[in-house]
Amino acid sequence: MSLVIVGSVAFDTIETPLARRERIIGGSCTYSALAASFFTRPKIVAVVGEDFPRETADFLKKRRIDLKGLTVVPGGKTFFWEGRYGDDPNQRETLKLDLNVFNDFRPILPPSYRAPDILFLANIGPDLQEHILAQVKRPRIVAMDTIRHYIVTQPDAIDRVLRKVDIYFANDEEARLLTREQNLVRAGRSLLDRGPRLVVVKKGEHGALVFGPDFVFGIMARPCEGVVDPTGAGDSFAGGFLGYLDKTPGRTPKDIRRAAVYGSVMASFVIEDFGIGRFLTLDRGQVEGRLRQFRKLSTF
Amino acid sequence: MSLVIVGSVAFDTIETPLARRERIIGGSCTYSALAASFFTRPKIVAVVGEDFPRETADFLKKRRIDLKGLTVVPGGKTFFWEGRYGDDPNQRETLKLDLNVFNDFRPILPPSYRAPDILFLANIGPDLQEHILAQVKRPRIVAMDTIRHYIVTQPDAIDRVLRKVDIYFANDEEARLLTREQNLVRAGRSLLDRGPRLVVVKKGEHGALVFGPDFVFGIMARPCEGVVDPTGAGDSFAGGFLGYLDKTPGRTPKDIRRAAVYGSVMASFVIEDFGIGRFLTLDRGQVEGRLRQFRKLSTF
Repeated sequence: MSLVIVGSVAFDTIETPLARRERIIGGSCTYSALAASFFTRPKIVAVVGEDFPRETADFLKKRRIDLKGLTVVPGGKTFFWEGRYGDDPNQRETLKLDLNVFNDFRPILPPSYRAPDILFLANIGPDLQEHILAQVKRPRIVAMDTIRHYIVTQPDAIDRVLRKVDIYFANDEEARLLTREQNLVRAGRSLLDRGPRLVVVKKGEHGALVFGPDFVFGIMARPCEGVVDPTGAGDSFAGGFLGYLDKTPGRTPKDIRRAAVYGSVMASFVIEDFGIGRFLTLDRGQVEGRLRQFRKLSTF
Repeated sequence: MSLVIVGSVAFDTIETPLARRERIIGGSCTYSALAASFFTRPKIVAVVGEDFPRETADFLKKRRIDLKGLTVVPGGKTFFWEGRYGDDPNQRETLKLDLNVFNDFRPILPPSYRAPDILFLANIGPDLQEHILAQVKRPRIVAMDTIRHYIVTQPDAIDRVLRKVDIYFANDEEARLLTREQNLVRAGRSLLDRGPRLVVVKKGEHGALVFGPDFVFGIMARPCEGVVDPTGAGDSFAGGFLGYLDKTPGRTPKDIRRAAVYGSVMASFVIEDFGIGRFLTLDRGQVEGRLRQFRKLSTF
C-alpha cells in the first residue's frame, strides 16, 4: 500500500474575522499529507523555495511523510497565498496568489514513487497533475481536487484530468460551476458522467455528499462553534479519506462511508487552529475518539 | 399518549422555478398533523372558512386525525399564503399573507384536548400559542415553531413562549435572527439558554442540528435531486419527530435521534410533490423503508 500526493506546499497569510496570521505553513499537499499520515505513510511531490523552514520539513518527516519528492529550488521562493474569510467560514476571498517556484515545476518522480496504490492529484494546475499521472504505473485509485481558478481558466485540461481519475473531490461551489447545476445531487451525478467512479462534494459546515455508481450518501461535519481557520479543511478531508483507503483492503460502500467519516474527522481537527497547528499535537487516539463519537451520534 | 397540534390550515399559492399551483391545501398544522399521523393520532386546533373543501377534511379524518378542534367559521375565508421559491429551495419569498379567519381565532379547547401528552404550538401567532398553552394541563412535552414574521414583529411574545416550551423547532435563518449568531452551533446553544430543553435547527437540504443539554448532533436530509415543492418540509419534520415521540416511552438521546430521523424521512417525502400531494398515497411501509435506507447509509 502506498499513497503519493502531489499538490502545493505553501506559505499562507490568513485573515479571519477574529485574527490574522502571516506566512504560516499551508498548501493542499501539506494538509492532505498530514491528515493521511495518521493512517499511512504518504509520499509527497511538491516544490518549495530556500525560504521553506527546516523545522517544518522535520515535522513532516516526524509524521513519517516521505519527502524524496519534495524539491527545494535554490534561491527560489515558496508558493504564497493570501486569503480572507468573512463571518461565513464557507466563503473566502483570495487576495494574493504567487505560484513562485511552482511556475516551472516539472518534476521527475523518484523511482520509489512510480507504482503507488493511490495517487492523489491535490489542488495544483491540471498540467502538472497530468505530468505526474503520465509517470506512474496505473494506480488502483487516482483521486483529484482542483479549485475555481483552474475550472475557469483551464476547463478543457480539467475535463481531461477528470476522465482519468477514479475519485473527484469538489466543493459545492466548484461542483456547481463545473456542471451549471444548482442542485448538488444533480451536480454530483452529472460529475460522475465526466469520468470519476466516485464524486465527493464537500459542503464545509454541512458535511459532504458522496456519489457512487449506485448510491449517494451524506456525511455530517462535526458541529463546531468556533472555527478558528477553515483553510485546509477540504484537503484534510481528502487526506483522511485516502489515507484510510490506502490501509483498507475493502472497497464496499461501507468502507467508503468509513473513509468519508475519517475525512470529516480530520477536517474537524484542522479547523480548530490556524494552519497545520492542530496537527502538531494530534495523535491517533484522538482521531479514533472522534470516530467513536461520530458513530455514537449516528446510531438511532 | 396524545398529541395536540395548533397551527395554520391554509390555502397556498406556490410558485417554483418549474411550476405554479393556485390555492392548494397547506398550513403548518396540516403538514405536521399529516406527518404525525403515520405514528399516532393527532388532534388539531385550527380554523378554516366555509371555502375549505369537504374532501380535505375527509382525507384528514381518513388519516385518523381528530378534527374536533377544527373550527369552521360560517361565511369566513381560510388563511391564505402565496410564496415563491427561486433556484435555491432553501430561500423563499412571501408574496401575500391573509390571516382571514385566523385574525380573531380564540378557540376554547374541547375537553378531550386538555391533557395532551405532547402539545405542538406550530407556526401561528405567539398570542394564539399562549392562549392554547393556558388551557392545557402541563403536558409532558410542549414544542413550538414560529416564523420570521413573528420574531420581527413580536419578539417579546416569542421570548415568553420560548420560556414555556421544551422543544423549539427553528430554521437556520430564524435561529440566526433570534440570537444574532452567525454560527449555527453557537445559535443553537444560545437558544437553549432561552428556555427549551431541546432545540432543533432545520437546515433544509443540509438536514438539521439537534441541541440538548449535553449533546449536539446532526441529521442528514435525504439527498434529493428534484425538490418539487419545499413548502411544509419543516412542519413535516416536526410532525414526524413529535408523532414518533408520542408513541415512544423512551427519552434517551438515541430516541431523540430516531425521532429526528423520522422527521427527516417525513420531510423527504413531502417535498416530492406539491402541497400535501405526497401524503395522499404514502403508507407506513414506505416510511419504514426510508428509515431503513437512512440506517444503512449511516453505518460505517
